[in-house]
Amino acid sequence: MMSRSSLFAQRIENLSGSVAREILSRTEATDVVSFAGGLPGREVWAGLRLPPIEDEYFQYGPSEGDSELRNVFAGRVRDAGLNVSDRSVLVTSGAQQGLDLVAKLFLEKGRTVIVEEPTYLAALQVFRLFEARVVAVPLDGEGISMGKLQEAAETHGADLAYLNPSYHNPTGLVYSTERRKGLAAFFDRRNIALVEDDPYRDLSYDGATPPAIASFMKSGSWVYLNSLSKTLMPGLRLGCLACSEEFFTPLLKLKQAADLHSNRISQGIAGKLLSDEKFLARHVEKIRIAYGAKRNEMSRVLENWMQEIAEWTEPQGGMFFWLKLSRSVDLQKTLDLCLKRGVAFMPGDPFFAEATGRSRHIRLNFTHPALGQIEQGVRAIGECLEIVCLEK
Amino acid sequence: MMSRSSLFAQRIENLSGSVAREILSRTEATDVVSFAGGLPGREVWAGLRLPPIEDEYFQYGPSEGDSELRNVFAGRVRDAGLNVSDRSVLVTSGAQQGLDLVAKLFLEKGRTVIVEEPTYLAALQVFRLFEARVVAVPLDGEGISMGKLQEAAETHGADLAYLNPSYHNPTGLVYSTERRKGLAAFFDRRNIALVEDDPYRDLSYDGATPPAIASFMKSGSWVYLNSLSKTLMPGLRLGCLACSEEFFTPLLKLKQAADLHSNRISQGIAGKLLSDEKFLARHVEKIRIAYGAKRNEMSRVLENWMQEIAEWTEPQGGMFFWLKLSRSVDLQKTLDLCLKRGVAFMPGDPFFAEATGRSRHIRLNFTHPALGQIEQGVRAIGECLEIVCLEK
Repeated sequence: MMSRSSLFAQRIENLSGSVAREILSRTEATDVVSFAGGLPGREVWAGLRLPPIEDEYFQYGPSEGDSELRNVFAGRVRDAGLNVSDRSVLVTSGAQQGLDLVAKLFLEKGRTVIVEEPTYLAALQVFRLFEARVVAVPLDGEGISMGKLQEAAETHGADLAYLNPSYHNPTGLVYSTERRKGLAAFFDRRNIALVEDDPYRDLSYDGATPPAIASFMKSGSWVYLNSLSKTLMPGLRLGCLACSEEFFTPLLKLKQAADLHSNRISQGIAGKLLSDEKFLARHVEKIRIAYGAKRNEMSRVLENWMQEIAEWTEPQGGMFFWLKLSRSVDLQKTLDLCLKRGVAFMPGDPFFAEATGRSRHIRLNFTHPALGQIEQGVRAIGECLEIVCLEK
Repeated sequence: MMSRSSLFAQRIENLSGSVAREILSRTEATDVVSFAGGLPGREVWAGLRLPPIEDEYFQYGPSEGDSELRNVFAGRVRDAGLNVSDRSVLVTSGAQQGLDLVAKLFLEKGRTVIVEEPTYLAALQVFRLFEARVVAVPLDGEGISMGKLQEAAETHGADLAYLNPSYHNPTGLVYSTERRKGLAAFFDRRNIALVEDDPYRDLSYDGATPPAIASFMKSGSWVYLNSLSKTLMPGLRLGCLACSEEFFTPLLKLKQAADLHSNRISQGIAGKLLSDEKFLARHVEKIRIAYGAKRNEMSRVLENWMQEIAEWTEPQGGMFFWLKLSRSVDLQKTLDLCLKRGVAFMPGDPFFAEATGRSRHIRLNFTHPALGQIEQGVRAIGECLEIVCLEK
């Protein structure tokens, strides 16, 4: 048996992703034009007032979540194509907590989870904490590669697959409907449990988002994660999970052990705001207009300042552009230089399950900076990249 | 290696404590006079208005918690005798989340955690989930028994000790200052990490609460948990942890993986309310008067209706009376009968690490029922106990 201190040291070792955390804490000073985090733009809640709530929300409440908010979330999950009732929805402390609960239920040393390459860095952090083996499968233009997924499942086995198919973080990719159907059939057939992380669904700028992968599953096991952080506001720290029936009670018990229930002040506020369906429709429309304009501006500006040194695909939704640089650059050095000019971006390395330190990718968020800051910021990044390239 | 479904089944098996959850969900219907849960009385927030907050709290925030609230919590931790700065305090989603983070850092199969016998049932739930061995050590009149603790540590080894020394749940016991000092020296000497759960500290009705055990520790390792659930309101879902230095960064990373950060709406509200020190002092005084009166009423009423069939010690603080029945009774049957009369209590079994199903104990909360409901409720419980006894 390991000594306490060595267990401790090993657990900490597994808590990587802290690189990203350090980058983010350095870059979120208020005077930095930050393309680094995945933050909403504050204009989307300009003028929004929090409604007063009854004092019943001051008390302890049900671990499942409050019924008004569960009702709202169930509607959102049904909009994604899943046939769920209010009673099969669990309110979580953000979608991030959904990952923690799922990892507790499914993962331990010796278990395998399939992820996209690249993938959401804080999911990697959770899966590593639970000492699971993480197998990364590349994306093609329609989603996670079917051929390589089959190969990986045969070579490594798979207990769980974690996918983020709608306006994927970090690449911005939206999976095609056909690929979603193919994946659903594959997970059904192989009895691989799917965790579908879907926080960006509402943020579509070029048309409707295809139904959730889980909506095409028949016999299989799935957990679907949604969130109010991107649609309403992150400060509420409210998300939800819906799941195939056998997982609900276990996940509910895990939720109870984790924090008894999610905060009720936020639940009261969100339940009240969002039970007005017109409010939500108007609010989502406002977000789409604001973020769509920023996406277009980012496209224009990248053409102007990055065309020589990077390639990218314009995202149809979500929060990110994912740039592949035409050659390998010291991104840490570039970031340091950028920060001196008051601009931040996110190097691509932490999004890879097996970080090489030689990633040619950078992720640029376009929702957080003000529309008028995008050009100066991207220009500064482009210039810093060129300076670091020339130095070599 | 186990198959996915067997891992799943085993995890669920470890999620006991659900008995208690079911009791609580049955007993918290609004028309039940409930002595079952650990809920505040709603009179303590009568007339309280939530202050408006700035829209900076709508955004993502630091995993450590917001500075205004960390400042408030650090003051509370210093009041418990611990020499901490704002920077060594981590805001958690209730003290319950502190247990989750601590378990993640310290526990796994083969690890041993020492608990009091009886102890807080949701702590047992968390420790079991992480498959730790739980060793229960009895209490005497001054706290956990020193002799039996030494014996247990020698027999089983111990990585962690979980104690709730101030108005202990479920017994109401407050550890003496001498015992606290003795325990601190013991944990220092043996290098056993202490988790001190201290949510009831403010709820003292007969004088000051002694300093935290951790405040007497010198070389050793400790984590101290505090909460606003009992002092201000549970619906905020806000607690904090402070800890010896080596644990802060690991626990912060675990917090980030668990839910990124605690909800900022509550943090903004609580930070604003409690930064007015006079508000907090007045509010705690109001709670002490309201709960102290209920404690006195419960004492009086128990003398009237339970003296023949149970014994107890009047608690000097907290939320609970712990009754030992003079003989073994089928408490499930008693509870069913009570519920038919619209009254609920908590059978003692779930508070024992090794539940026997033959516990002679019941826990009665006195803070949640209205003052005027206590007599009718206790009388009903006494009558039901006698009916079930006679039936045998």
